[in-house]
Amino acid sequence: LRGIGVELRCRCIETESRRMGKLIESVELFPRSAHCKDAEIIATLKGTGQQICLDTSAPWVKKVIERILVKS
Amino acid sequence: LRGIGVELRCRCIETESRRMGKLIESVELFPRSAHCKDAEIIATLKGTGQQICLDTSAPWVKKVIERILVKS
Repeated sequence: LRGIGVELRCRCIETESRRMGKLIESVELFPRSAHCKDAEIIATLKGTGQQICLDTSAPWVKKVIERILVKS
Repeated sequence: LRGIGVELRCRCIETESRRMGKLIESVELFPRSAHCKDAEIIATLKGTGQQICLDTSAPWVKKVIERILVKS
């Protein structure tokens, strides 16, 4: 779940804990800010374009990001 | 420079090499795919919302991403 545009509060209401690395089309990272005390990671899924908030502390999420960077 | 929506080619034409970590509102990561052989990183800047392609191999870019993850 996410809002659109510049948010003045946290974008994520709940996070997906299931591993879904292979379904991910792209990942957007939002640093913590004055408006949201936690960093947020929002994945866009392949095909549907559905957007899902990921658990920023989940090891599989960090691995997905590392894999993108390593393969660049 | 970036396009909108699902791209069937690379989104980035050129990348910004200057350090601009403090100006970054959010960062979007696109894994390499059948349509683009390189991973791409697109930053949205604070205030203007301008989108800029970052050099995926630049150490400062990796640090910006790591910092977001660590502070989550």
